[in-house]
Order: sequence, then C-alpha cells, then structure tokens
Amino acid sequence: MNRNVSCFLGCEWEYAAAATVLFGAPYDGTTSYRPGARFASRVMRAESYGLESYSPYQDRDLGDVRVFDGGDLELPFGAPEPVLEEIRSMTDRILEDGKRPFMVGGEHLVTLGALRAVAARYRDLAVIHLDAHADLRDDYLGQPLSHATVMRRIWELVGDGSIWQMGIRSGEREEFRFARKHVHTCRYGCGSVREFAEQIGGRPVYLTLDLDILDPSIFPGTGTPEAGGISFMQLLDTLFALKDLNIVAADLTELSPPYDISGCSTAAACKVLREMLLMLG
Amino acid sequence: MNRNVSCFLGCEWEYAAAATVLFGAPYDGTTSYRPGARFASRVMRAESYGLESYSPYQDRDLGDVRVFDGGDLELPFGAPEPVLEEIRSMTDRILEDGKRPFMVGGEHLVTLGALRAVAARYRDLAVIHLDAHADLRDDYLGQPLSHATVMRRIWELVGDGSIWQMGIRSGEREEFRFARKHVHTCRYGCGSVREFAEQIGGRPVYLTLDLDILDPSIFPGTGTPEAGGISFMQLLDTLFALKDLNIVAADLTELSPPYDISGCSTAAACKVLREMLLMLG
Amino acid sequence: MNRNVSCFLGCEWEYAAAATVLFGAPYDGTTSYRPGARFASRVMRAESYGLESYSPYQDRDLGDVRVFDGGDLELPFGAPEPVLEEIRSMTDRILEDGKRPFMVGGEHLVTLGALRAVAARYRDLAVIHLDAHADLRDDYLGQPLSHATVMRRIWELVGDGSIWQMGIRSGEREEFRFARKHVHTCRYGCGSVREFAEQIGGRPVYLTLDLDILDPSIFPGTGTPEAGGISFMQLLDTLFALKDLNIVAADLTELSPPYDISGCSTAAACKVLREMLLMLG
Amino acid sequence: MNRNVSCFLGCEWEYAAAATVLFGAPYDGTTSYRPGARFASRVMRAESYGLESYSPYQDRDLGDVRVFDGGDLELPFGAPEPVLEEIRSMTDRILEDGKRPFMVGGEHLVTLGALRAVAARYRDLAVIHLDAHADLRDDYLGQPLSHATVMRRIWELVGDGSIWQMGIRSGEREEFRFARKHVHTCRYGCGSVREFAEQIGGRPVYLTLDLDILDPSIFPGTGTPEAGGISFMQLLDTLFALKDLNIVAADLTELSPPYDISGCSTAAACKVLREMLLMLG
Amino acid sequence: MNRNVSCFLGCEWEYAAAATVLFGAPYDGTTSYRPGARFASRVMRAESYGLESYSPYQDRDLGDVRVFDGGDLELPFGAPEPVLEEIRSMTDRILEDGKRPFMVGGEHLVTLGALRAVAARYRDLAVIHLDAHADLRDDYLGQPLSHATVMRRIWELVGDGSIWQMGIRSGEREEFRFARKHVHTCRYGCGSVREFAEQIGGRPVYLTLDLDILDPSIFPGTGTPEAGGISFMQLLDTLFALKDLNIVAADLTELSPPYDISGCSTAAACKVLREMLLMLG
Amino acid sequence: MNRNVSCFLGCEWEYAAAATVLFGAPYDGTTSYRPGARFASRVMRAESYGLESYSPYQDRDLGDVRVFDGGDLELPFGAPEPVLEEIRSMTDRILEDGKRPFMVGGEHLVTLGALRAVAARYRDLAVIHLDAHADLRDDYLGQPLSHATVMRRIWELVGDGSIWQMGIRSGEREEFRFARKHVHTCRYGCGSVREFAEQIGGRPVYLTLDLDILDPSIFPGTGTPEAGGISFMQLLDTLFALKDLNIVAADLTELSPPYDISGCSTAAACKVLREMLLMLG
Repeated sequence: MNRNVSCFLGCEWEYAAAATVLFGAPYDGTTSYRPGARFASRVMRAESYGLESYSPYQDRDLGDVRVFDGGDLELPFGAPEPVLEEIRSMTDRILEDGKRPFMVGGEHLVTLGALRAVAARYRDLAVIHLDAHADLRDDYLGQPLSHATVMRRIWELVGDGSIWQMGIRSGEREEFRFARKHVHTCRYGCGSVREFAEQIGGRPVYLTLDLDILDPSIFPGTGTPEAGGISFMQLLDTLFALKDLNIVAADLTELSPPYDISGCSTAAACKVLREMLLMLG
Repeated sequence: MNRNVSCFLGCEWEYAAAATVLFGAPYDGTTSYRPGARFASRVMRAESYGLESYSPYQDRDLGDVRVFDGGDLELPFGAPEPVLEEIRSMTDRILEDGKRPFMVGGEHLVTLGALRAVAARYRDLAVIHLDAHADLRDDYLGQPLSHATVMRRIWELVGDGSIWQMGIRSGEREEFRFARKHVHTCRYGCGSVREFAEQIGGRPVYLTLDLDILDPSIFPGTGTPEAGGISFMQLLDTLFALKDLNIVAADLTELSPPYDISGCSTAAACKVLREMLLMLG
Repeated sequence: MNRNVSCFLGCEWEYAAAATVLFGAPYDGTTSYRPGARFASRVMRAESYGLESYSPYQDRDLGDVRVFDGGDLELPFGAPEPVLEEIRSMTDRILEDGKRPFMVGGEHLVTLGALRAVAARYRDLAVIHLDAHADLRDDYLGQPLSHATVMRRIWELVGDGSIWQMGIRSGEREEFRFARKHVHTCRYGCGSVREFAEQIGGRPVYLTLDLDILDPSIFPGTGTPEAGGISFMQLLDTLFALKDLNIVAADLTELSPPYDISGCSTAAACKVLREMLLMLG
Repeated sequence: MNRNVSCFLGCEWEYAAAATVLFGAPYDGTTSYRPGARFASRVMRAESYGLESYSPYQDRDLGDVRVFDGGDLELPFGAPEPVLEEIRSMTDRILEDGKRPFMVGGEHLVTLGALRAVAARYRDLAVIHLDAHADLRDDYLGQPLSHATVMRRIWELVGDGSIWQMGIRSGEREEFRFARKHVHTCRYGCGSVREFAEQIGGRPVYLTLDLDILDPSIFPGTGTPEAGGISFMQLLDTLFALKDLNIVAADLTELSPPYDISGCSTAAACKVLREMLLMLG
Repeated sequence: MNRNVSCFLGCEWEYAAAATVLFGAPYDGTTSYRPGARFASRVMRAESYGLESYSPYQDRDLGDVRVFDGGDLELPFGAPEPVLEEIRSMTDRILEDGKRPFMVGGEHLVTLGALRAVAARYRDLAVIHLDAHADLRDDYLGQPLSHATVMRRIWELVGDGSIWQMGIRSGEREEFRFARKHVHTCRYGCGSVREFAEQIGGRPVYLTLDLDILDPSIFPGTGTPEAGGISFMQLLDTLFALKDLNIVAADLTELSPPYDISGCSTAAACKVLREMLLMLG
Repeated sequence: MNRNVSCFLGCEWEYAAAATVLFGAPYDGTTSYRPGARFASRVMRAESYGLESYSPYQDRDLGDVRVFDGGDLELPFGAPEPVLEEIRSMTDRILEDGKRPFMVGGEHLVTLGALRAVAARYRDLAVIHLDAHADLRDDYLGQPLSHATVMRRIWELVGDGSIWQMGIRSGEREEFRFARKHVHTCRYGCGSVREFAEQIGGRPVYLTLDLDILDPSIFPGTGTPEAGGISFMQLLDTLFALKDLNIVAADLTELSPPYDISGCSTAAACKVLREMLLMLG
C-alpha cells in the first residue's frame, strides 16, 4: 500500500520525466488588506478534482503534457527575505535540471524570489505581468519588500522596457507616472496583447499572473478585489495569444480561498492553471 | 382557517384549470462533486416572493398564465432507479391529464425520469439541452446512471440527431468526439439557437436547462461551476428564441443553494423559472 | 493624543473648508425582503482603506477634492416619518452652509428625506434615478412610505417629466404604465444617458443611485438582487457622462453588507463612491 | 392533485380538531442591531423535517398532540402599531374558538400584540418571560414600542408582581432597578423555576420565550447574542418544570436565521418548539 | 524530488511498520438531510496541520505511535452496496496484514462495510456505538441500507446484547423500544461507560464514533445536528475509559465540513482523531 | 459639525482625564494557521454598540470608569521587530503619562512589545497569562519572534517564577517540560486562580488574555481553535478573582473576525473587554 499522494489534477509524472515542475509558495506575510493567499495551493490541489482534465478550448488533455507536482515549500512566517530565498533556491534547482518552474502563490511578492533565479540564468529576460494593480511602489509603509512593490523590485533587476503590464486599473498616481517612463502598460484590459507579443519576439519570458486581473464577479476570493476587471474568456484569449513565446517560467498568485465560500474563485483558478499548463505544453 | 399553502410565486391555480404543472424532484444522489441540489425546489418556492410576478421583458404577468404547483415528490435516497421511476410516473400522470409537466431538480439525472414518460407518448421527440457540460459519458466510475451520463442515456431513447446542445464548455475528449457524431452541438455559447429552432420545426420538444450554463459569476450556487459561461441576458434571449416551438415538457436543474450564501443564484433561478413559465404561457 | 476618527478614505477635510459633506443614513425599516442596508455606511468607511485614493479613470485623487465626513445620523427604528425628518434637517443644514450633501444609505426610502430639503431650495429640480427597480408604486402593502414607493413620492414633489430613470428592469405592470406617462425611462441599461443629459441641460440635479442597478454578479450584497443588470464599467461610464451637469446633491443606497461575505459588494460600492466624489469634485 | 402544503413537522391537524394553533409573525421592524427574525417561522417550517417527531425526553410524539399550522400573517413593514393589531386580532380569533394560540416570531415586540388579546380575556394573567434581556426600558431612542420595551408595555397591562423573568443577564442599570420593584426576576439562569411555578399556582399563564436566553454557543443565530447564557438541556428542564401550569398562550421569538449559516440555531429552535408543543399537549 | 504526500498529521509511517492503518471512506449517498460528509477525510488531512502532535491529556505524541495513512478509497456514487463492498475489502486486507483498521467517514452507513470484515474474523465481537441517534430503524423510506438503519443491520450481524450505545438522544419511538430489548443503551450522555467497559471485558471490540454525539455548539458541522449533546471533554473522558479494551477496529464518522465555515468542527474532529490514535497506541 | 469619531462603546473620555488608555495593535504577521486578528480592534469598535454599557455582574457602567480610546496603531507588514517597537513606544508614552495601557491585538506576539515597556518601568513584574496555548517554544520554524514563542521571550525578560499561566491545553511536549521548571501553570482550566492571586500579592501585574482560552463553541473566531476550553462565565469568574491585584497594564488578543460569520465571537470579545475595563475601574 502506498502513502497518500496529493497532486494537482493530472500532474502525476515522475520528476525525472517532467518538463514542467509545479510547486506552491504558501506565503502572504505582506498582504496589507485581506490575508489568506497562503491557503491557495493546498486548496487548489484538493478542488482540482472537480475539473475535467480535457480542455475543449485547446483540444488538449493534462494527460498529454508532462507535469510533476512537488508540493508546497515549507516557509517561515514574518519577515519576507528568508521566504524569497527558499523560493529562489527551489526555482534555481528546477532550472538547473532543465525544467520549467511553475509556482502557485501565495501573494504576489513570491514572484520576486522566483524571478531572481530566472533572471540570473537568462539575460534579456522579458516579464509579462497580468494584474489589476501596478505593484510599482518604491516602498509600502516604509517596507521595500511587499506585494505592492514587487514589480518595482523586478524592474530594478530587468531594467527599463523589459516589463509588459496588462489589465492594470489600480495604483497611486506616482505608480502610473513611473509606468509611463519605465514599463509597457496596457490599462484596464489586455487589448495590446498581440502587439506586446510581437515586441517581445524570441526573448525568454517570465509570465506572472495575479489573478485579481479578473473581475471580482468571477473572482471574489482575492486579497484586494478591484471592480472593472476582465472576464474569464478574455483572460484565456490573452494567455492563448502568448502561446508561441518562449516562456521559461511562470506563476499564478493571489487566490485567497477564505474570501470565497462558494468555491468559484478556486474553481476558476484551477481552470486557469489547467489552461496555462496545456498551453505551455 | 386553511392550512399553510406554499407555492412558487403566482403558481396558485387549481390542478383542473392548469395548463402547466410544476413539481420538484429533490434528488442529488449521483452528484460527484458538491451536493445540495436536493434543496433547490424548496428554497426556490420560499425565495420566489422576493421577485415581481411581472416581466418587463415579455410584458406578461404570472397571473396571466395557468400554473399549478404540486410540491415536491418524496424520493428515496441512495440508488437512482426508484427515484427515476417516481419521476416518470408523476410526469406520465400530468401528460395523461393533458397538461405540460415542468420539473424543478435536483441534479440533472432527474431529467431521465421525466423524459422516459415524455418519449413514451411523443414520437419524434426533439430534446433541447442547455448546459455547461456535455453529460455524454457512457458511465461514470462504472455507474450508467449519473448526472454525467444523463444525455447519453437520453440519446439511447431518442436516437441520433434528436438532441440539440448549447453552451457546452466542459467534458472528456471522448464526449466531444461522441457529440460530433450523434448530436447537434453549439459550444461555449448559444449562437446557433435560431438555426437550431428552424431545424426542429414543429417536432414536439423536451427542453432541459442545466443552470450551470450560466457563468459562475451570476450563478455560483451549483455543483460543478464552470467559468466561461453565458450571461443572464444571453440565457433569456436564447429561451425567447425558442418561444414558438412546440415545447411539451421542460425542466430546470442543478441549483445548489448551500453553495451561494448571498442568495443570488436562487434569485436568478427564480427569475429564469418565471420567464420560462411566461414564455410557455 | 486625539480620539479615534473614522472617515471614508480621503474625506478628512474640516467642515468649514469642505465643498461636499458626506453623511450616513443607516435605515432599512421598510426593506421588504432582505434587511441589512443599515450597516452600509459604517462598513464602507472601514473597508474604504483597501482602496487607492487615486483614480486612473479620471486621473484625480481624493486628496484633490474637499470632502468632509460627518458620520452617521442617529436614527430611530420602526416608523419612517421621523427618520425622513432627521435626514431632511441634516440635508437642509448642509445646503444652508453652501455645501453639497452626499448621503450614503440605507435603503432607498432615505432619498425622500434628502430630496425634500433639496426641492425646497431648488425650483425646477431634475432627478436622475439609477436603479434596477422603478420604485413607482403608489403604496406597498398599504403603506405610502416604502423603498418601493419612493420615486412615486418624489414625483409628487417634482412633477411630470422631471425624473430621468435608467437601468430599470423590475416592477409591477402598473409601474411601467405609470412610467410611460410621467417620467423619462431607459430600460435595462443606460444607453440614453447622453440624450438625457442634454434634455436636463443646466437644471439643478439630484442624483440618486440605487446600487442594485449593477448586476448581482458584481453586486450580490443588496436587498433585492435582480439578474440582468449593468456592469461596473457601464456604471462608471454613465456617471462620467453626467459630469458636466449641475449636480447639487447626490446619494448612493442599498448596499447590504451581510449578504456578501466576500466583501466584493462593499469594495465595489466604495469604488463607486470614490468615482462619484472625484467626478463631483 | 393537491396544492403544496407546508406545515411545521407533524402539525397537520384540521383547524376544527386542533387544540393548539401555530402561526408565524414575521416582523423585525424595531430590531436595533441585527435584523432577520422576520425569516424565522418560514425557515423553521422548512428545516423541521430534519427533526424526529418523537421526543425521548417526554416519551411523546407530535402525532399524539393536536396542532394546526395556520401559516404566517401577512404584515406591513415599518411602523409597529398596525403589526401588533394584526397579531392581536389573529390571537383573539383563536382564543374565541377555544384553542390555544402559539406564535412564532419575529422579534420580541410581537409578544405585545398577542398578549393584548390574551389579557383581554383572562383576568389575573401571569406572564412567564424567559430571556437574556430584561426588555424593561420605558422607551428606546424615543420610541415606546420596541423589542427593548416590550416587557415594560406588558407590565402596564398586567401590573406589579405578575411577571416572572428568568435568564436575564443584560439591560441598563435602570431596568434592573425597575425589575427589583415590579417583577419577579431570576438572574443569569433559571434556578428559581420551581419556586416561581409554585407562586403562580393556578393562574392563567402566558409563556413567552426569547430564544436568546440560550448561550450563543448553541444559539448564535439571533439579533443580540449575549454570552453567558443557559444550555439547551437547562432550557428543556425549565420548560418541563412549567408543565403543570395553566398555560393559555405561548410564543417563541428572536431566531434570526441569516446569522447562523450552520443551521444549528434553527435546528435548536425547532427542537424547542417540538418540546413545547408536546409539553402543552 | 518526491511527489507531494498528504497524510493526517504525524501518520507518516511505512505500511509495513504500521500498527494502525488510517483510510478515508468519502461517501454520503444516503444522507437524508444535509450532505457533505464525503469531504471529511480530505479536509481533516489538510486541517490537521493546525494541531499539535502532542497530547497533554495523555502525555503522548503522534510520533510515538505507528500509523500509516492510506488515503481515501475511490468510491462510486449512488447505490450503497458497491460502496460497502469496497470498504469491506479494504478493511479485510488490513486485518489480513495483522493491523488495526481505522476508517474516517463519510456518513455512518460506511461502518457497515468495515464491520462486515471485522465480524467475519472475530467471533463474539462487541460493538461500542457513540452517537446522538439510535440508527436502529428497520428501513428508511423503504431502503434497508441507510445512515438511519446502520445499527439495525449491524445488530443482525452481531446479535442481541453485543451492542453498547451511548449518548443517544434522537430516534423514533419504535427505535427506543427496539433498543430496550436488544442492545445496551445509555441515553443522552455516557455516564455508564465504566460499567459498559466492565461488561465487555476481554471481547474484541469495534468502536464506532458518530461525531454528532457532541453538542452542536462545539460540532455544528454535521448532517443532522441534535442540541443537547455531550461536551468535548466528556467525549475524551469516555474514550479514555475504553483504553484498556481490546479494540480491534475503529471509525469516526459524520463530519460535514461545508456546514461549519468557522472550521471548528473540523478542528475538533482532528483532535478527537489524534486522541483516539494515541489511546489505541 | 465634527468629524466622525469611532470609539469602543463608552470609552469617550478625553486623554488628559483618562485613567486607562485603550489602543489597537492590528498585526497578525506571524500567525501560522489562520490569519485575521489584524481586523479585531476595528471590528470590536464597530460591534461594541450591540452591547449594553452596564454590567449586572459587577453592577457598574462604562460611564463610571474613565477610558480614552486612542484608535489603532499604524503598523508595517512583514517583519515583526518594527511592529514591536511601535507598540513599545506607544505603551511607554501612556505609562509616562501615569495611565494604564490596555492593548487590543492582533495576534499574541504583540504582547511582547507592550511588555517590554512595562517591564522597563516596573521591577518585579508578575505576568498573568490566560491562554489555550503555552506559547513557550524557543523558536518556531527557526524564527524567535512568533505567536508561539511570545511567552518564552517574556520569560527571558521577567525570569523564573514570574509567569502564572492558566487554561493551557495545547503545546509541544517540550513546552510542557519547560513550563514545569520555569513558570506556574494551571492546565485546562483556571481552578488555581485564587491560589495564584495570593502568590502574586502586591506585585505589579501585566495581565495578558489570549481569547482562545475560551472554548471554540463560544469563541470560534480565532486563529487556532482548541476544543476543550473554558466557558464564558468561567472566564469572567477568573477575571473577577484578579480584581484586587495591582494590574498596571493589560491586553486582549487573538480574535479573528473573518472566521466567525455569526459575529458571536466578536460579541463575546466585546463583553470580555467591557468586564475587564469595569474591573480595572
């Protein structure tokens, strides 16, 4: 008899054979408003079994792609720096083994840990950032490491013109000013996605998805819901438009299950994850 | 003093005078993911009093149509066959009396019971199936009777080319293959509704509505929510496009009230029921 | 050390310097279906801190406009007339001081109190009414003062052709008949907003917003949710189209926080309030 | 086929044959804190079917006692006086027919309506009041009719020394002073119940039960939960100790179902109602 | 890198070395009132990590006992007989390997499956049954296999005087009559536990715990909550009083997580499981 | 007109005149299981208005004691050390002004910040610790500052034999060993409270209350609910037994409002706070 294995639906390949490695980063220590993203990866694994493994949109099945689920990192609470280091180290190990890391947050700050590992291995890294919030503050209540500053820290790593933002509809005036000078931005929706994909061309891409880009009607279970977001089908269309890019790492963040008792936010997050895994192939 | 009568809003005609007979089938025994559809008919009756009896969309009032509410069937738990027989028998009795049966589920398997009665009386029956899921599996975990197989069982009764599906966005690869050969399908939305109505022409129609065709944003209270669904107004437009067909029986299934504490799913289901009753007239 | 002050985000000007005065009217005594609007103003103040003070839509910040938050009125329970008198008196005092009153309900009946004060000071007052419900009944279960009769009472004050309704999708047959004769109505959506704004021209305007004009998918937390409503962006666009009118008083009503545990309804209401305050500027 | 009848479990006798008549008074218009008691009678009817009709505590079954369920009164919203008159009139009619009225609230103010009818027919009426709150204020925010003043109004009808209170653990200082002079009070628990029963002797009794006498651990679904209450078994023991009194009318109030999503408060209320009906016999 | 293993807290021994084998039976197909027990074992595994592995009550740690967690059985939906056979077979395999089976339900009917395997191997089996409900009906709505008949079916296997019930406070009159003749019963509480333990002596024991024996104040998350139950500490004391018996198999049933959003029912169930595993040792 | 002031019920004295100063410390950054204590002080202020200001238990009214409510500290997220320094500084200022600080958490780690200020001013400080958890770990996942280590850090400040713990029912084996050597402990309940009070005598006392000492039946809204706790009346009795001690500072922590939708946990916390303020007088 074997011990009880718990993987995201269909992600049951052996590590050695896998092309993509899924792992969870259950941290929400800098969440300023409503915590709970720490529970996302665990709850998604459990709830994924309400989903079909087949996608009619892509005519592909999770059985067709090789994904290993490494479970959740065991992360300390409180200060973020040790957390980011754990994530960086895990990401680096996966890249070292020639596989694509796919992290499930946690709050959005976790992206910084993974991106440090990816940026260290790939020059000229392009970052695609799907989100309701610009996340471009220089600090938040005096702290440089926060879900509200994560893209600013990433900009410090990848430099001007290497970040493409879509869906942004919230931030301070200063963040929008900063964005105009230093990053590519598509406000409110993702209408520029094809143009952006062309600009990026063959560069290696880190794709980071903050699920609060979705309208709270379909995704209420998140830390800082922002009315006026995109629909689920608009998100899928945006992701599919990125299919031919060279995506070397990806993540999905900011599901906060306790704030959606109906479970629909978790179900939507699982479906987005299925579509991303199928699209990355 | 009279005993406390509890009917769906405005459905207070005597049986003898009624053209349509409403009844509930509170069964969810094969629900594989999130049970609770057993409570739908009871909760809808209670909550219907938050609704107006008048529809501005159709400029008709429930007072204008003759509907009798027969309450809920008392159904056994566990194995589905005796449940289906109770439903078949009730449906048959209503048809025998020259009235139109309208069943409120319960999970989608209940449709099989009603359809057996209708198919026995109407040759050349056409089935219109509005749903997020194809429900065309041959079995589910070895069981032939399940919410996931119900349309396959119905296909066995009505044969090739007699089922028109709309809104389908979830299923196994095999179900989509089967659908291409044996049924008419409109994926994701209901864009083909006018074309389908023309194909059906004057044939007697059984109309079955799985409410999870709606997007979970407006209808989170259901067993298997599938992001990417249609809006409430798209559903009404689809139903109105079927108005001139010869609909001899209808049902509405898969509201699961415990999964929507806000009550909006129940309120939406009640409004759909009002519009269907007005449209059947 | 100062006592704990609790204002809506950014509404921290002194009364003397303020152009707009916010106050809460926590009454839901005639709510016929699901009470709870009494909690709206208090919960909105607390939750507004999850919001940015800056609007990218208008490129304005709450710091740029002068708003004073006067807190909530202390209102009796039960009979509505004393409640309306408290509201009238507060509104009158604000107008007397040359400032614009902005009331946060409470149920929609509270609008009648404020409107009595405004109509006494402004001849030729135009009323813009954004709502899912016509609210034009002559009485409700025999009572003349009710959330369902409030626009009828207001019509008695301002007369024929002085009310412009948008978004209406629910009411009795009789209300729709009445509306055709006595008020301007745009059904289901707000497509006529530019035409309406032109008709109103330079007249002083009372703008009353029942938040249930929004679709329940984005706004489940309300007393009588009506599927088939407008989206958040459609509401913002409608409001922005009214920007150049002479709005002398405004309100926002019918958020019922207990019916949306996810908090998204409250978050949406706060964002609408931010946009209205910035637009009134 | 008969229309759908909905009675409290086992209360299915004809009116003519009944000894006790159950009816609902769905009013919560003066609730100052958390409304929702208006839904209690309707929800209790539906949920009573999760209960057994047999009580092992009393070795009696609801089938053994003759109870008719007359459904809910249709009450206006807002001002309380017309509501109280409807209740008084219903109660009077039941007494006129020689039956015992049993009212299910609603908030506690509804008791005043029923008591007016009972006090008009029975001289020397004794009132037993089980509650967490004294309800002895002279007015509440200036209003004489309120859930917080109901026992004061009743004291005006029945006079000094005719009210026996148990379980009281909340009130203003002034209410406790008033209680010492004018009513019999047992604080915090019901330890004096046998002594009280002896004092009352053969007088006709109106028994009014505010369910918030129970500890919020077992009864969270109420308008004003007060920690430090009695247990369910203590409540049953108290009720059983009153069995031999001449109880001519009774009520049970203040269940607010929306505040207990687990449904345990409603289940407890149903069980208390079963035990009271069996005990009244 | 290893696949993600998910065990109940501290139950991480290899199968070969284990003395006790935990497994889940996620079935609730005959639940007549509120389904959801199907989710119990999965949710308990996840939430067990909020618990300490050490018990101060017993001064033992889960690290001290050898438990293997075999995960959940994959069970069909609908009819119960195939479900019971899966459970019987799993239980038999564990017994065959000389280990003690410990099943986590699911609804109470699952006990019958496990008991069939145990009764086949142990003559003179004693059954200790902790529950709010007698579960002694002969059939339920015509069905012989149901959560409400499970102890009657078990009585048919083990015979008169071999079942010891405690905590029973709900059932039909007929069940209480049956109990008096055929089983040992301690009503309402567990006061007879020491006497019962003596009567059982050295016989092999199957211990079945329906968690609804607990008062709904501490355990609201269950299918049929019955006010008037025992406290958590009374349950522990009862279990500890059974410590020296020869318990050859055990189970714990009827946690329904969706009905307790606070999570306290799940937390209590996990703690009971910890104490039982430590006590079986 | 004045700005909207929001104080805990009855705590409306000016700072200069106050004997006790209430303030909130909305931090839960090291919460390992279920976050949300950050919302406690804000929600308690709002919900306190459902409470009476008078206590029949003590025959005192909040109007009789002089308390100033200074609102919530604005605390950074993430690392705990800057948070503790803000709390220390606020506490020190209050002590400097000759007043008694009363802090409302937040998670239990906040106590360390306040205690540093108090221990710096009072030699021979005694600490009374009411809690379900020992909180005596040396580190938690490698971090020395955590809700699970807070009493160990405090022991380092006050030394052996200066901490009196009551109610403890959860911890690691090592914590219980440590407790036996270095602190006074009363397990499970508070039976030793009178003996402890005598031991403490006239020493200055810091009283820290983790509300999870209460049983989860009455207090489900907390981060780590532990079945088997004390009742609300047992907690009041324990507090009243400490009335004559020289309590120079106090706190109350670990209410997590999002985990109790019924609001009963918040209501209980408010009542405990009222009783503590009245008792400190």
